[in-house]
Amino acid sequence: MRGFSQLSPTERRLLLEVFWARTSARSDLAGRLDFSKSKINAAITDLIGAGLITEIGPRPSSGGRRAEGLRVTLRDGLIAGVDIRATHMDIALLSPDMSVMARHCEPISVRGEPEPLFARLRDVLDLLLRQLGQERERIRMIGIGVPGPVDFESACLATPPLMPLWEGFSPRQALAADFDVPIFVDNDVNILALGTLWHLSRSADDFLVVKVATGIGCGIICRGQVYRGVDGAAGDVGHICIDPNGPVCHCGNVGCVEAMAAAPAIARAGAAAARSGESPRLLELLQAHGALSPEDVGLASREGDPAANAIIRGAGADVGRMLATLVNFFNPSHVFICGGVATIGPAFLASIRQSVYQRSLALSTRHLAIRPIPHPADAGIVGAGVLGFLEAI
Amino acid sequence: MRGFSQLSPTERRLLLEVFWARTSARSDLAGRLDFSKSKINAAITDLIGAGLITEIGPRPSSGGRRAEGLRVTLRDGLIAGVDIRATHMDIALLSPDMSVMARHCEPISVRGEPEPLFARLRDVLDLLLRQLGQERERIRMIGIGVPGPVDFESACLATPPLMPLWEGFSPRQALAADFDVPIFVDNDVNILALGTLWHLSRSADDFLVVKVATGIGCGIICRGQVYRGVDGAAGDVGHICIDPNGPVCHCGNVGCVEAMAAAPAIARAGAAAARSGESPRLLELLQAHGALSPEDVGLASREGDPAANAIIRGAGADVGRMLATLVNFFNPSHVFICGGVATIGPAFLASIRQSVYQRSLALSTRHLAIRPIPHPADAGIVGAGVLGFLEAI
Repeated sequence: MRGFSQLSPTERRLLLEVFWARTSARSDLAGRLDFSKSKINAAITDLIGAGLITEIGPRPSSGGRRAEGLRVTLRDGLIAGVDIRATHMDIALLSPDMSVMARHCEPISVRGEPEPLFARLRDVLDLLLRQLGQERERIRMIGIGVPGPVDFESACLATPPLMPLWEGFSPRQALAADFDVPIFVDNDVNILALGTLWHLSRSADDFLVVKVATGIGCGIICRGQVYRGVDGAAGDVGHICIDPNGPVCHCGNVGCVEAMAAAPAIARAGAAAARSGESPRLLELLQAHGALSPEDVGLASREGDPAANAIIRGAGADVGRMLATLVNFFNPSHVFICGGVATIGPAFLASIRQSVYQRSLALSTRHLAIRPIPHPADAGIVGAGVLGFLEAI
Repeated sequence: MRGFSQLSPTERRLLLEVFWARTSARSDLAGRLDFSKSKINAAITDLIGAGLITEIGPRPSSGGRRAEGLRVTLRDGLIAGVDIRATHMDIALLSPDMSVMARHCEPISVRGEPEPLFARLRDVLDLLLRQLGQERERIRMIGIGVPGPVDFESACLATPPLMPLWEGFSPRQALAADFDVPIFVDNDVNILALGTLWHLSRSADDFLVVKVATGIGCGIICRGQVYRGVDGAAGDVGHICIDPNGPVCHCGNVGCVEAMAAAPAIARAGAAAARSGESPRLLELLQAHGALSPEDVGLASREGDPAANAIIRGAGADVGRMLATLVNFFNPSHVFICGGVATIGPAFLASIRQSVYQRSLALSTRHLAIRPIPHPADAGIVGAGVLGFLEAI
């Protein structure tokens, strides 16, 4: 599948429009793209000739007439979407409409060298291809999300705090010998933001996806596109100061939201409540598991443990204070919350909301929705697939 | 000058490109816009026919050959740029290349009713037209900046804290009977951001313009355009909390940056230092002027008064802490500082810089420049003119 770079601007805009719409009626496209009918028809003919889109036969259009549908096929191609998280790797082969054709998830650690992990990734891709009875050549593009900062142009990891051995590593190069297709790499929250944009069918243009897990990060969708900032560092919100008298963070500053409300801080606060005698239930869980996880604190909270509840409410309020600042500045339509900590109990999201509505300006919260990410299980792989497609064409 | 709405997308893109470039060689445009030469030439012919652009004769092109230059003329039209600030109104008639043809600035108060002020604005526009020997019909569009939140679609003021009598007032309607042209209204910081974008010739795409005066506000340029957010409230950063143990703000929350570092807070801190005996110099200025202004505190600071210096450094550090958050989130290339407080002394900007570099992530500040706005005296009227042009076409 060569030739993406040879697409004309008109063909590229048309291909994008058909991609986002999943299925497009020929007659709708001219209006949506503000092209003449003859120009659209010429571009459609070219894209069909190149095998990038196909006609899917007559279907009822909104006006009651029958119109020819179009969808992206990439000559019966597949897109590989890879979501590498701190503890798991989720790998999927997707059709160009982001349907999952084959998928595999397995536990990993990103603390070690990246090379063995990418050898395994190659094997899993081959395995998934075999499940579908397909060859490597069927994959048209690969999108990869990683839990650390990425230099987007070079696709290399840039001083990733969770995975120091990945410094300067290029996932693109690691796969290039086996997969001679466009490969793009981005950080996990940008991938989640793209997956959410897909799941919303672009019905929202300006929103944030905030992940609260071992760290805290934010993906920014601005005017329907991922916004990465001038150095690719936009959305790196974990070290925003929410309390100048707060605890010291590993970054050297004080009061970073990550030091106060991410998973390690919640686990630490839980252990302190257990050891101080404040929470017998947390002590029980600590003794049973050897160490406390945020999930343990969430469990105790849902069982009604007051200390656990206070910890979760405090963490939610802290994240909410950081978000109130972002809401005042960015005035998004939605803030989607995800990540391991987001699911430990309803009190967490409730406290975030309370804190944001208390601290943000009335005008900025008039239409603001704060809610869990729509498809948490699929947003990563789908977002990786969307990244692969958008950047390749 | 009717017919902006009848421009085709191609003509609109071409007109925009020629506008931003000030002068464009015909031969450069096809490449920059990715249009075919024949398409460009047809659009140029149409725009010349409509009187929107004109040929300015052969000029040396970069390749040594001679090319026809193009520039926007709007049929020898003028653009009115109006910058209404809390204490002054600055009014200019601009040519389409944003040269100031005539200009008038006078003191006003926005605390009163807006109608008399707009009657005066009409008179000033007529006066400036007479200076140029022109009629009202020569004005093609009007852009207006106001020191309060604007509902951009309706061009009405929305709960403006400085000017309660303007609630729901429409500057557009107030001028429509006398000037039958497109009129657009935006808040002062968005206007300053547009003026700065013009002065930078779009050499930066993602930057912030922060005004520190009676209040604190921020204009956001994202991908070369003003970003207003979903409710037009983006950049309303004055009530970002920088200290949960800080003073109570008039908005009801605590620790808002505006309550700690805007002009009234600096004046208050100066008066306290004067009355406590901490600063004899500030007491002298207080007695001489009846009340202390931020400029008085700046004067004392430049004379070496330690208390005044500490006040200014503290305010700069507070603004810097707020900006560190925005820099982590948005990763801009520049933060431009302006407004009355910005010019009270070099210590203010120095403290902002120190605070941002200490608190922001290394990756986000790698290429970050924090500096005064490039053309403070003209950014408002030029930005208002740019707004008028961009929104009208």
